[in-house]
Amino acid sequence: MNVTGYAGIELARLLAGHPGVELVSVTGRSSAGQRIGQVFPHMANLDLTIKSELDEVDLVFSALPHHESADQLIPFIEQGVSVIDVSADFRLKDPGLYDEWYGFKHPAPELLKTAVYGLPELHRAEIRQSRVIANPGCYPTASILALGPALKAGVVGGNVIVDAKSGVSGAGRSLKLSSHFCESDEDVCAYAIASHRHQPEIFQELAGVSGDITGVTFTPHLIPMTRGILATCYAKLNNNVSETDVTAIYHDFYRDEPFVSVVSEAPHTKHTSGTNMCLVYTKIDHRTGLLICIAAIDNLIKGAAGQAIQNMNLMLGLPEETGLPRLAQFP
Amino acid sequence: MNVTGYAGIELARLLAGHPGVELVSVTGRSSAGQRIGQVFPHMANLDLTIKSELDEVDLVFSALPHHESADQLIPFIEQGVSVIDVSADFRLKDPGLYDEWYGFKHPAPELLKTAVYGLPELHRAEIRQSRVIANPGCYPTASILALGPALKAGVVGGNVIVDAKSGVSGAGRSLKLSSHFCESDEDVCAYAIASHRHQPEIFQELAGVSGDITGVTFTPHLIPMTRGILATCYAKLNNNVSETDVTAIYHDFYRDEPFVSVVSEAPHTKHTSGTNMCLVYTKIDHRTGLLICIAAIDNLIKGAAGQAIQNMNLMLGLPEETGLPRLAQFP
Amino acid sequence: MNVTGYAGIELARLLAGHPGVELVSVTGRSSAGQRIGQVFPHMANLDLTIKSELDEVDLVFSALPHHESADQLIPFIEQGVSVIDVSADFRLKDPGLYDEWYGFKHPAPELLKTAVYGLPELHRAEIRQSRVIANPGCYPTASILALGPALKAGVVGGNVIVDAKSGVSGAGRSLKLSSHFCESDEDVCAYAIASHRHQPEIFQELAGVSGDITGVTFTPHLIPMTRGILATCYAKLNNNVSETDVTAIYHDFYRDEPFVSVVSEAPHTKHTSGTNMCLVYTKIDHRTGLLICIAAIDNLIKGAAGQAIQNMNLMLGLPEETGLPRLAQFP
Amino acid sequence: MNVTGYAGIELARLLAGHPGVELVSVTGRSSAGQRIGQVFPHMANLDLTIKSELDEVDLVFSALPHHESADQLIPFIEQGVSVIDVSADFRLKDPGLYDEWYGFKHPAPELLKTAVYGLPELHRAEIRQSRVIANPGCYPTASILALGPALKAGVVGGNVIVDAKSGVSGAGRSLKLSSHFCESDEDVCAYAIASHRHQPEIFQELAGVSGDITGVTFTPHLIPMTRGILATCYAKLNNNVSETDVTAIYHDFYRDEPFVSVVSEAPHTKHTSGTNMCLVYTKIDHRTGLLICIAAIDNLIKGAAGQAIQNMNLMLGLPEETGLPRLAQFP
Repeated sequence: MNVTGYAGIELARLLAGHPGVELVSVTGRSSAGQRIGQVFPHMANLDLTIKSELDEVDLVFSALPHHESADQLIPFIEQGVSVIDVSADFRLKDPGLYDEWYGFKHPAPELLKTAVYGLPELHRAEIRQSRVIANPGCYPTASILALGPALKAGVVGGNVIVDAKSGVSGAGRSLKLSSHFCESDEDVCAYAIASHRHQPEIFQELAGVSGDITGVTFTPHLIPMTRGILATCYAKLNNNVSETDVTAIYHDFYRDEPFVSVVSEAPHTKHTSGTNMCLVYTKIDHRTGLLICIAAIDNLIKGAAGQAIQNMNLMLGLPEETGLPRLAQFP
Repeated sequence: MNVTGYAGIELARLLAGHPGVELVSVTGRSSAGQRIGQVFPHMANLDLTIKSELDEVDLVFSALPHHESADQLIPFIEQGVSVIDVSADFRLKDPGLYDEWYGFKHPAPELLKTAVYGLPELHRAEIRQSRVIANPGCYPTASILALGPALKAGVVGGNVIVDAKSGVSGAGRSLKLSSHFCESDEDVCAYAIASHRHQPEIFQELAGVSGDITGVTFTPHLIPMTRGILATCYAKLNNNVSETDVTAIYHDFYRDEPFVSVVSEAPHTKHTSGTNMCLVYTKIDHRTGLLICIAAIDNLIKGAAGQAIQNMNLMLGLPEETGLPRLAQFP
Repeated sequence: MNVTGYAGIELARLLAGHPGVELVSVTGRSSAGQRIGQVFPHMANLDLTIKSELDEVDLVFSALPHHESADQLIPFIEQGVSVIDVSADFRLKDPGLYDEWYGFKHPAPELLKTAVYGLPELHRAEIRQSRVIANPGCYPTASILALGPALKAGVVGGNVIVDAKSGVSGAGRSLKLSSHFCESDEDVCAYAIASHRHQPEIFQELAGVSGDITGVTFTPHLIPMTRGILATCYAKLNNNVSETDVTAIYHDFYRDEPFVSVVSEAPHTKHTSGTNMCLVYTKIDHRTGLLICIAAIDNLIKGAAGQAIQNMNLMLGLPEETGLPRLAQFP
Repeated sequence: MNVTGYAGIELARLLAGHPGVELVSVTGRSSAGQRIGQVFPHMANLDLTIKSELDEVDLVFSALPHHESADQLIPFIEQGVSVIDVSADFRLKDPGLYDEWYGFKHPAPELLKTAVYGLPELHRAEIRQSRVIANPGCYPTASILALGPALKAGVVGGNVIVDAKSGVSGAGRSLKLSSHFCESDEDVCAYAIASHRHQPEIFQELAGVSGDITGVTFTPHLIPMTRGILATCYAKLNNNVSETDVTAIYHDFYRDEPFVSVVSEAPHTKHTSGTNMCLVYTKIDHRTGLLICIAAIDNLIKGAAGQAIQNMNLMLGLPEETGLPRLAQFP
């Protein structure tokens, strides 16, 4: 549902190349009746018409805006259709956070208990059993994968800082001055400082990993590039841990993960472009006793559409890697 | 052979995802002994070591620089191994043009007669039968696909102009001031005006399509983007032809082509990114009697690695589309 | 009038640093009442409030959209105030062209006869005497300066082709999908092919230089950069002219021009950034008998605000270079 | 001395437009004998030849690499010529830090005591009296201006974090893979994590402001833009301070500064482009008790050449703003 945004159309593209599913129906709010290639010329080779209502389906992805997504998905959930929600509407466990951060009263707070936060590296077993998946936000995906192993191992705690850098596609396809080429090109700026909606999501999941975390300061930045998120995270090391120890912790944590690589040099977002990979790197600043953890992803794939398909593969019992690139389009 | 450039590594990436072949061996001049992920971190998920010499193979791609490519390929050709040369060494039929434009005496002029210029849209049948394929240059691919149908139909003739715009990856991975970010970002310039090596290649192939062409003026430009070529071509309409006629000629010419689309709006290079597609568009300027033909490609795929694989598919009798994306990575 | 677009605010910035004038009043349609730094933070150091109506002034610049500009300027012209119109409303001599190309009936066709086309390199003497200056369009500035000397000298004629490349700022600050960062970044495309409004303007002025010109084919392209225009022009050499002859013609033509340099290497738009300079270069393609002339400008300065100030300097009898940078901000 | 890098040539450009000085002589290591426009076409309008040795001068700027800069400046200092060193060679007070961080033994450790760190906002009075100015590094300029007022006022302390983002021009004009357009475009990465040479410089100056600071974690990032640095800084608030208090502290601190603006929205580097301005912004994260301070500068101007001229103005008793733009080239 709703392929007319960047995450939605990327989902359509990846599903079109997925050998295990058939993309039977796409919807778009303002473009119903048009062929997909009229809205997105890069998809002209796909013979699909955008509809206003879904056909009968086995599984629904929603790339609708928050609030609207829950409203549209609830009937499907009640009919027993599996749903993967790319919006934020089922991510937070505490219904009150929707009032506080998103400004609406959640229409089905009881569903928040059963919905599973779709980060396979943390919740793979529950995802396999669930019918309602809350696909993680782009910034939380990078931040949680960067900090999770150190928190889990108990080597860091307290307040953590996430200084994140995102390409402009994260702000969507709708028109705003901050996405105008002439304003964002050759520029970098922070936004939504200490007030971004992904902050409670990052905190909820990291607090689920370890009770040692007490808070998250989250500062997103807009970078003059189209795709990619780099999350540079800072956490206080709470005892004498060596570089070798930390590296071992991360390699252990991600040993069997198909889409996370622990790398030995500071990662580049460009090396993830077009893939579902997350590249994770750690470094200790011995002078200040901080652990610096960095994660790089393609915000539209591991940060949205690709992770949704990874979740779908798990729900349907398909091999987890199916239809998901692991080699980047570079340069 | 030689994966250490941008075309070479793109070839390795596409071959790694190709279901009908096995990538058994890669070489690189200066990086022998390194794992492929050490030179190109975006390829770290591919477990291959770069060698100095090829193993025993059925088919060789060469992405070596010109002259060196011929020298290395000739022994393979003599042993009956099929070769696809991404360099320019087998593209020109007249050996004298190598002295004139490339500054070396061709080491095997007799092979130039049997080598096939690997543009499937013009030479599909010969490619299927050949053992030596000269993979077209990036600019010629776009220029010939833009102008070919009109010349073939006899509606244009005389001197043609190709004003082409290329992303910086066309200049390769080696270090030069003109590829320095700070010099090429926020800049556009022409280069090699009336003296670029792709001029004789474009002329040779278009003259093969129609004797009505008398010359090519070719002006390449460097654009601050990584991938993509747009060729804007101008040719004198030699009689009263309508927009409808021209459109019909192009649709007829490319009717069954899997990798050329005749589009109804001026094409964007970005809509070809990551694909083997060429988007072609035509428009008549009635005031001046010119036909304007525009083609957009991804210079590293349809303009290099993808077309090489398209040729390989034809040589090996595989379905032509195998392993070649048709939906772009966008945005 | 109307500083809320890119050309308007650049005019305000340059006037603020101009030693010979005082910027007394700025207007903006939707931002009246705001301080200039609220609309444009880069201008926060300038203490000016945007008004809805002009104060009493000696000279008015208008950066309003076409049609509206004429409507607003006519009263000032009637009161004898000098005006420099950055819009197109006084550029075309033939009133019928406004119906044909701009879709409105010109409100004061008699003024078109007395208004002077403000390209100092062609019309310096008239500009000095005039009260109504039509400031040239960005593409016409580059195109006319590139082709003018060769036409004047009679070495080229017939139909000419202008293949122009512009940064995104040329499309203005208003929001459109084609100016969205994610759509224009890493992309190049042609637009308004054989139908751009600058075509009749280029033709009018070049026809004024020489009756030998019979038509103009004009193809603008959008380039992923903020500022700059490169016009690559093609014209048939009508007799045996050498490279040396052409170079001499251009050097002669521009010998005393403070803002045109004839350069010996193909020019980069980046080398004009922030300046009022136009860099001009020529090259003969002997194979096809074409002259290739290239001009590079900063579209917002020599292509708009800077040229307007150059015209003002001439009208006010100030040294022509006053307040206009000649050294580029680079890189 | 040494105009062949980006900081050096920007210094030459600004000095050429400075009304109070005459640029008599420029040197460049590899380009001696060439006109300045041959090395930098954007400077072609300046009639200067690059020399191998300086003429007789009153004041020398050095934009040489570190170590070489000290070696070349020492003779001038000994002759009583005023010097402004854009390199790092006189910035650190402790000679041992040159061994540790720069890998060379300082040739004149006694001069480190008398050299003044040329950040006018901290050391204006000493700069006026000094003959040897160590012009601050680009990252330190932004970091110190962001954190200085809060430290001075005693509202923050402990370890601070500086997460900085720089355009590619900060890496210089020399050729490296990381400055290749195709590698840095559409990419963001961290580098020199916990090991960058600007770390001791930031710490030295901030420790001079307040003994409450115990350490600096400094993480620079490379951003796909040419100019600009954004420093996002995090410091623990050590008592109950309100947003209003902090804002007042910053406004007080910078009240009379011509080149620092305390802004009310998160600053954009683009709004400083071409100027000597530093834009500073603060925000409290009440959930975690952190102060977030952000500074934006043009790395080549306030971060290098412009600050050098600001220092020169102070040394020569000229008005401090002379020759230094305060309105940005935007967009």
